[in-house]
Amino acid sequence: MKKILPVVVAAAAMVPIGMATADDDLQSYKDRFEALPHLPPIPANNSMTPEKIELGNMLFFEPRISSSGVISCATCHNPALGWADRIPRATGHDGQVGERNTPTVLNSGFLGSQFWDGREPDLEGQALGPIEADVEMAMDLETALERLTEFDLYQEKFEAAFPNDEEPINADNLAHSLATFQRTLNTPNSPFDRYLHGDAEAISDEAKDGMVAFVDNGCIACHRGPALTDSQFHAIQVPGSTDLGRFTVTGEESDKYRFRTPTLRNVAVTYPYMNNGATETLEEAVTIMGQEMLGREFDETTVNNITAFLHTLTGDMPDFEVPALP
Amino acid sequence: MKKILPVVVAAAAMVPIGMATADDDLQSYKDRFEALPHLPPIPANNSMTPEKIELGNMLFFEPRISSSGVISCATCHNPALGWADRIPRATGHDGQVGERNTPTVLNSGFLGSQFWDGREPDLEGQALGPIEADVEMAMDLETALERLTEFDLYQEKFEAAFPNDEEPINADNLAHSLATFQRTLNTPNSPFDRYLHGDAEAISDEAKDGMVAFVDNGCIACHRGPALTDSQFHAIQVPGSTDLGRFTVTGEESDKYRFRTPTLRNVAVTYPYMNNGATETLEEAVTIMGQEMLGREFDETTVNNITAFLHTLTGDMPDFEVPALP
Repeated sequence: MKKILPVVVAAAAMVPIGMATADDDLQSYKDRFEALPHLPPIPANNSMTPEKIELGNMLFFEPRISSSGVISCATCHNPALGWADRIPRATGHDGQVGERNTPTVLNSGFLGSQFWDGREPDLEGQALGPIEADVEMAMDLETALERLTEFDLYQEKFEAAFPNDEEPINADNLAHSLATFQRTLNTPNSPFDRYLHGDAEAISDEAKDGMVAFVDNGCIACHRGPALTDSQFHAIQVPGSTDLGRFTVTGEESDKYRFRTPTLRNVAVTYPYMNNGATETLEEAVTIMGQEMLGREFDETTVNNITAFLHTLTGDMPDFEVPALP
Repeated sequence: MKKILPVVVAAAAMVPIGMATADDDLQSYKDRFEALPHLPPIPANNSMTPEKIELGNMLFFEPRISSSGVISCATCHNPALGWADRIPRATGHDGQVGERNTPTVLNSGFLGSQFWDGREPDLEGQALGPIEADVEMAMDLETALERLTEFDLYQEKFEAAFPNDEEPINADNLAHSLATFQRTLNTPNSPFDRYLHGDAEAISDEAKDGMVAFVDNGCIACHRGPALTDSQFHAIQVPGSTDLGRFTVTGEESDKYRFRTPTLRNVAVTYPYMNNGATETLEEAVTIMGQEMLGREFDETTVNNITAFLHTLTGDMPDFEVPALP
């Protein structure tokens, strides 16, 4: 874990609240951030087509690819709840509770790896995991594909999405269409994006002070780039967690307790926080991150300002259809 | 159970397929049906207001009123699945499987009583049952109300919906707003409704023959009125069911195995069928109903025609929002 101990903290902390409105002074801070594009990178081997998006949208809401027949991707990645579940740890098949907090799928195409432990490099790799996981959808993949094959509508939609495949209903195409749909679930145009694009009034003075504190205290070292994550792994043991993190993937001693930096996009609507979901509020999360990652005790003003800044990262929720499933 | 043994069956069965296109001859059949209104009756003590609809829409998709935090009304009454679940019997808390097939909430405001056994007279009475049922959302009602009270947005929306109440977040108002939302979930303008309204081409000749068979065989004795149900209780023991039906509510010997006639609106998209959901296809359901309720063995043509007619009862799906929950 790289810790940044910025030298400008003391100076910034002494600037009175409200200085932030002199926006010219903040250009050097704004320059540290990137607005969220409307689309993430699209992999060469999985072009984004309307047919794949439509099919992926259907499959995302399809509970018949779970063994109970009632759990879909949208159960835990619930569009009514920031495309996550707002409970500490994911609850899946037969009410089993998993080890980790459900990450939102919003902007997940911008992440350099998937899952808290980064065990899959991309959304194509990620998509089938929860279907098969015993504590999530608990479904045998072959059975899932057989169930889909029973429906004429799925045969038609898979053929349309993958016209060159002789047997288009297969695991790869299931993953590819789900990944394609997920790449449409982006939230551009947040107040902070509008601010970066020149609308000085798009965020409050408190949020601007929070942006300054976010940079000066070094939060931005890991939470950077368009999704405000470096997609790297950093060691952290939050209260109540014994999760070994990336170590469970690599077996490397140095990966113990390391987790991929989560995106901060829409963080205000994707509570609770941390790998175990034990942290309920943004204020607590900011305080803990200060302590654990930066070795700092943020004062109340700093916590409130950074929290106000984080609230500006909630963007426009994406369009999607509640599909009429066959 | 009243059985109708119509005297015109033999004659109707001999009419060649295609006679149905002479629509003038069918007026007497059409007169037996009622098109679906856009709204069901609204009770005097629960006026329909935009505020109640909006709140009810939120609550319908709200999983935090279940004890697991992941099951909402929309889990089993899934808008992607005809507002039902398309599995034989409802699967709820901790994966428990209930005794009965999930009825669709579509057009449920047109029913004279709620649940398969009619144990509640109206949607206000129905709404809280699944929240509290151990095998469904398994939630203590007081806890559900406390959870809602924690959210400023719910305080605001309950106040807006029930402006005369000092403490608007209460069980009655939870039920009233859910019931109000459900009364918006209607499916007018089905092909059969358009046919009844004068569009002779809205349904196929096969479906018209099915309409004739539906009347002549007496299906319409119980499946009548705008929702194609008399809302009365009739004894039936379908394959695999030992369910005592309305007897569990009244304790009356004469109510053993009696169930409320289900609506046939949208029946093509609300499979599987019967109280235990053991019947997978409409063709089987029609055959079983002929045998069990009418004492008749329908021939293949009759089954196919009635099935074609039932397919014309799928209407326009209702508007609703996937709400942004707090």
